[in-house]
Amino acid sequence: MSRSAVFTAAEYSRRIRDVKKRMERAGFDLIICQDPANMGWLTGYDGWSFYVPQCVLVHADGELPIWFGRAQDEKSALLTTGLPQSNVVPFSEYLVQNPEDHPFDELAELVRARGWGKAHIGVEMDAHYYTARCHAHLVKGLPDARFSNNGDLVNWARLIKSEPELTLMREAGAICSHAMERAVAKMSPGVPQNEVIAELYHAQIMGVGGLGGDYAAICPLMPVGEGTATPHLTWTEDPLPQSGLAILEIAGVRRRYHAALTRTVHFGRPPQAYIDIAKAIVDGVDAGLEKARSGNTAEEVEAAWQAVLRSRGLKKESRVGYPIGLAYPPDWGERTVSLRPGDRTELQPGMCFHMMAGVWLGDFGLAISESFVVTDKGGEKLCTSPRELIVVE
Amino acid sequence: MSRSAVFTAAEYSRRIRDVKKRMERAGFDLIICQDPANMGWLTGYDGWSFYVPQCVLVHADGELPIWFGRAQDEKSALLTTGLPQSNVVPFSEYLVQNPEDHPFDELAELVRARGWGKAHIGVEMDAHYYTARCHAHLVKGLPDARFSNNGDLVNWARLIKSEPELTLMREAGAICSHAMERAVAKMSPGVPQNEVIAELYHAQIMGVGGLGGDYAAICPLMPVGEGTATPHLTWTEDPLPQSGLAILEIAGVRRRYHAALTRTVHFGRPPQAYIDIAKAIVDGVDAGLEKARSGNTAEEVEAAWQAVLRSRGLKKESRVGYPIGLAYPPDWGERTVSLRPGDRTELQPGMCFHMMAGVWLGDFGLAISESFVVTDKGGEKLCTSPRELIVVE
Repeated sequence: MSRSAVFTAAEYSRRIRDVKKRMERAGFDLIICQDPANMGWLTGYDGWSFYVPQCVLVHADGELPIWFGRAQDEKSALLTTGLPQSNVVPFSEYLVQNPEDHPFDELAELVRARGWGKAHIGVEMDAHYYTARCHAHLVKGLPDARFSNNGDLVNWARLIKSEPELTLMREAGAICSHAMERAVAKMSPGVPQNEVIAELYHAQIMGVGGLGGDYAAICPLMPVGEGTATPHLTWTEDPLPQSGLAILEIAGVRRRYHAALTRTVHFGRPPQAYIDIAKAIVDGVDAGLEKARSGNTAEEVEAAWQAVLRSRGLKKESRVGYPIGLAYPPDWGERTVSLRPGDRTELQPGMCFHMMAGVWLGDFGLAISESFVVTDKGGEKLCTSPRELIVVE
Repeated sequence: MSRSAVFTAAEYSRRIRDVKKRMERAGFDLIICQDPANMGWLTGYDGWSFYVPQCVLVHADGELPIWFGRAQDEKSALLTTGLPQSNVVPFSEYLVQNPEDHPFDELAELVRARGWGKAHIGVEMDAHYYTARCHAHLVKGLPDARFSNNGDLVNWARLIKSEPELTLMREAGAICSHAMERAVAKMSPGVPQNEVIAELYHAQIMGVGGLGGDYAAICPLMPVGEGTATPHLTWTEDPLPQSGLAILEIAGVRRRYHAALTRTVHFGRPPQAYIDIAKAIVDGVDAGLEKARSGNTAEEVEAAWQAVLRSRGLKKESRVGYPIGLAYPPDWGERTVSLRPGDRTELQPGMCFHMMAGVWLGDFGLAISESFVVTDKGGEKLCTSPRELIVVE
């Protein structure tokens, strides 16, 4: 995690070439990427500055991308990317949270100044920080341009991980397994929930084996008791209960690459029904991992999982997984493939997924997930945590 | 931090009444709020679900707001808000990251079903998660409605904190001071940067005096060395240097209420210039706090700070502060008032600000910030950390 580039210049060049091919196929002259993970993947840019408008531009004719962001963050761009000063363009400070003018007024100026005012521009219509106002100001400032949703073009380019990326994913998996172990060891009836989370954060950031950890795109989630019926609750300072369920969903993060994992704890002796559901989930994951080999489709993985659940009288309606990798808050999912019916994306070696295997019922839930890499032999697990309903008595 | 409501029903009712008055003045029949902090402030809703489209609706005629979100999160809404089932409306799971259809197609249906299809609707055009696509689908689904930017109407309503909110802000300040102390104690030449951050996270979440901590809307920022020239860099695993600067910007968080703080450490004996700059910053903050009394304006606080800097031959071009309080990633600022020239907002007791007092030059920076509450006697500091250039030798 030095400030030096995470990847070689050759890898960044390869990425840009790949993106340009996709742009050509889609008919774009220029794409404007505000998703911080896309910005980082294209240039190496890294910093918590995504709460103000910023983006990376890739033009069909430009050898290197352009970073556009707040003047305060210009130096961050110079330190974290290999871009020359000419490709790092700051916007004026008075535009920050200005009710009339907007940073993307100056972005429009930049686009015109480079002679791209009549371009066909692909924007990320549903990227988290590409607000309605960002779009309105950009469109207004470029009346001669043609705008289309680029359909998360760069997110799709990120889908298959390179070997150096897979190294980071496996390191993230090691950090994740370690952090899960540390947190679970802390979970006992009566322990305030936030003490478990404090331990967990410490383990996530310390990392393991000399590999330091990074912040996760989602904070630790820990629904407890009836809260396990819903997946996105965070901790409280209440003590863990004498009996009942708690779910912990976390990631290990290595240089912004994420491996995610969910485990379920039962305090006290669990009802047989919970043991059966946990067994069904683990078997369902195994069935999914078996199908997660190159050449199969995304929906086949889900179908294999769903078949196991169905055979046990269970179901999960939401998609069972999504791609993971480089990520920034608020999500470690990549917003492309979904492991769900109808998604016929062909799996290829190097794709990474979080199989969010869980069952949520009216007043409780259990989840035992797995992050994996697609190989030609099936899904290779990124984490090593035991797969079972963890019983704490 | 129990799952029970953070505030009394009476406080939520007061908030809704206040918002409705603001709506009436601005001519809105309906506002749609996607900012997670606005959603939480209006209803108590709390969960890390803001990576999918969701919102809270307030209609002039409705007694209670309506929560709209993912089916998975419906139970979170029922557990964390006092809303009845009729005011908690889930959208269909297949809409999650669907390239054609969008959750806000169903939001438009909801609005029409309630008879509000011809309403004047105020949306948060620049809220972080209100994407261009959210807006496009909503507008398309409500062809007879009139849309306007609501100008962060609810953010403005949040500006003056109630007494129960101020209690949480002061508790957040205590957590923040404690976490800063723990982190600084860990900072020595040769210590891997991530070890400092691991210690810091642990302290943030453990809290202090039995008051548990919550996750911060911005991860700890720790630029080191030349990185101090720019404010938003995060840690690496490199060892802290034998000499030079490091800046730590953090928050303490209590039930989603934030007190933020920045301190600067120098390893080894600091140059006199740094000592002088640090002194100027502290004096500038004192001058600002003195002006931060009810009746004065936002720009007067900045002017007092800037005058001190100017007298020492320094300047800071960006705004020197912004309101803080209830917050979710990616920002703990409230996006309303700015402590900068031209902002004539009149200060009132109970407004809370982070005065981001720092000086960033070409290849280094120093920052010693303060979070405060406006009172009729000036700014009351929320944290107790010593204000100085911290020297570690």
